[in-house]
Amino acid sequence: MKEVGKGITAAKGFSTGAVHCGIRNNPQKKELALIVSDVPCAAAAVYTSNLVKAAPLNLNMQHLQDGKAQAISVNSGNANACAANDALNALKQAQAAAARLGLKTEDVLVASTGVIGVELPIEKIEKGTKEIVLGLDSQDSARAIMTTDTKVKECAVEFMLDGKTVHLGGIAKGSGMIHPNMGTMLAFITTDCAIDSAMVDAALKDCLRTTFNRISVDGDTSTNDMCIVLANGLAGNPEITEQNADYETFRTALHHVMQQLAIDIASDGEGASRLLTVTVAGADSEAKAETIAMSVASSSLLKAAMFGKDANWGRVLCAMGYSGASFDPQSVSVAFASAKGTITVCENGKGLAFDEDRAANILDSDQVDIDIDLHEGDQSAICWGCDLTYDYVKINGDYRT
Amino acid sequence: MKEVGKGITAAKGFSTGAVHCGIRNNPQKKELALIVSDVPCAAAAVYTSNLVKAAPLNLNMQHLQDGKAQAISVNSGNANACAANDALNALKQAQAAAARLGLKTEDVLVASTGVIGVELPIEKIEKGTKEIVLGLDSQDSARAIMTTDTKVKECAVEFMLDGKTVHLGGIAKGSGMIHPNMGTMLAFITTDCAIDSAMVDAALKDCLRTTFNRISVDGDTSTNDMCIVLANGLAGNPEITEQNADYETFRTALHHVMQQLAIDIASDGEGASRLLTVTVAGADSEAKAETIAMSVASSSLLKAAMFGKDANWGRVLCAMGYSGASFDPQSVSVAFASAKGTITVCENGKGLAFDEDRAANILDSDQVDIDIDLHEGDQSAICWGCDLTYDYVKINGDYRT
Repeated sequence: MKEVGKGITAAKGFSTGAVHCGIRNNPQKKELALIVSDVPCAAAAVYTSNLVKAAPLNLNMQHLQDGKAQAISVNSGNANACAANDALNALKQAQAAAARLGLKTEDVLVASTGVIGVELPIEKIEKGTKEIVLGLDSQDSARAIMTTDTKVKECAVEFMLDGKTVHLGGIAKGSGMIHPNMGTMLAFITTDCAIDSAMVDAALKDCLRTTFNRISVDGDTSTNDMCIVLANGLAGNPEITEQNADYETFRTALHHVMQQLAIDIASDGEGASRLLTVTVAGADSEAKAETIAMSVASSSLLKAAMFGKDANWGRVLCAMGYSGASFDPQSVSVAFASAKGTITVCENGKGLAFDEDRAANILDSDQVDIDIDLHEGDQSAICWGCDLTYDYVKINGDYRT
Repeated sequence: MKEVGKGITAAKGFSTGAVHCGIRNNPQKKELALIVSDVPCAAAAVYTSNLVKAAPLNLNMQHLQDGKAQAISVNSGNANACAANDALNALKQAQAAAARLGLKTEDVLVASTGVIGVELPIEKIEKGTKEIVLGLDSQDSARAIMTTDTKVKECAVEFMLDGKTVHLGGIAKGSGMIHPNMGTMLAFITTDCAIDSAMVDAALKDCLRTTFNRISVDGDTSTNDMCIVLANGLAGNPEITEQNADYETFRTALHHVMQQLAIDIASDGEGASRLLTVTVAGADSEAKAETIAMSVASSSLLKAAMFGKDANWGRVLCAMGYSGASFDPQSVSVAFASAKGTITVCENGKGLAFDEDRAANILDSDQVDIDIDLHEGDQSAICWGCDLTYDYVKINGDYRT
């Protein structure tokens, strides 16, 4: 497996395009994109765990009952959630794309991200859909789905199956309202692998657990989040219909792309100045390690300390303690690490004397690791988060205005 | 029942005093206080739910096994948690107060708040304990226990029991790391009511549920939090030994003081510019109403919007949706209110057209109400929180330095 460029257009037979359709005022900002396969795809999706689900998610659940889809219409700038005519407008968005592409409405999926509670300007979307020219770069669509994101998020890999070259790539957006079980994020993954929809669904759910569900920006889980995988089979490999060795190869590639997109989202958390990678090792179960790592990665107090380059490991222990997981505080060790070095600050649950200047220097990095060892077993989990900065408050203090 | 001044010295036979003992550098900042009763008290305490509990809490659990205590020694500037010799230093702190006051060590309770993981400078505390002059104002001790607090928190009431005047008053500290189940907060309540320790314990736990456990500043729950009630019986009322009418009168007074201290803590949340009062009404159970209200009061995204005076009610619905409670999103109504007026922004789960300028004006207030109605029953709950501001990040970015 090797990384290649081109995101969602790496796989054979996929094309994309995006336009500015007028949802936002800035004419330079594209906010409507189509992702299209030349042929029908096996498809699967996962949705937010939020009880309040936006209309596009409910529509997609219907359209994916047969495990097939061929295109995705996605807009930013309006979430089409809790708004007048939201269900009708989601359907109209799918109908407009179906008409533009000559597909059945049931084979079009829709996604929206942006402000909640404002009616979707469906006429602008219908008009924009007609104007979209396919054949643009993956990055155009990756940019069109961005809201407060500052970086384009795309990743693609190439791998071999039975002598055939297979491609799998994706784009994602997500910056705030990021927490396990699909915080405000959208991800669209395309592959030319031949695989049936049950196997796509199984691989997606398996990879989700240790990728998008292991990131936190602010503990808020959105109403609109969704990850869709479209597999069109054009690579020509023998179709994967069971969890065999080929499935494992596919799953590994999917995991790689999803993990990279998840890390990209965490590191582009609203206002974030550094990516936090929290590893809990030495646990007696992976579930416990994950619970503790997520609690640490989600602590506002610790995140603010990381912004301030303050090796305030007491907040690490504190967040571990209220995670709900049981462990022996007297056995815990904590270290901070970055490309500049590693410093152990706590052993056997007690603080060690350490050089504060050296610690601040290690924390003054784009990527900081928080390494926790429970010393009780051999299971581990990694979660990703970011620091809490003035800019998070600024961005979210006037998001709508 | 009427409010009176004097906090913890409102009740007969209680005195207090505080000194600067050198834990902090600023000689103007007192950081060690004693709270003392002339006679033994029936006593009860509640502790943090954090698995990692600071040494003073463990000591108090031992000292309160007999339901009796006569004094409290409390310091700020150091949490005496996860530090070398923490258990021994908690004991030494109690011994120093016992020696100073001529009490048994078992009748002294201790409390600490401040940085975690640094050894308590016990010699300074021992020396300071000897220097404390009793007979100072309640406010002196209320100030001595403050960390990042900006306001003194005290409250006292007077009420009648069987022709006798009874007093009950308290002080509290708490500003960050505030979340249900005793986020970094300390509260000390004194009363001259005659009541046995089992009834104090019952009333404390009952009141806790709807007061200190209903506030959130940042979702972090500390290792050190504790609320202690001392009742010395000097009011001369018939001793309360069962849950009769006198008990109800006592419980009502305790609830009043605890609720006022809880609201004071929420409104003094680190960096907070406004108090948020979240009411969920029309629920089919109080537990559900509480779950939803706490989720809304804890949402970083909503808290940032409230700082920005942005009536972004989509974030209210979003936080309701990930609370874990089940409800019908299509039945929900949401209104914002303050002394400047009320504006309904969502009905039947859909956004209403509203005047943004008027909404911003209503939100531009020290105290903002977020009123949610589920329209499914007659149960309700109120929780308190605060907005998320630049200053929260600033305060917590360099707390130790």
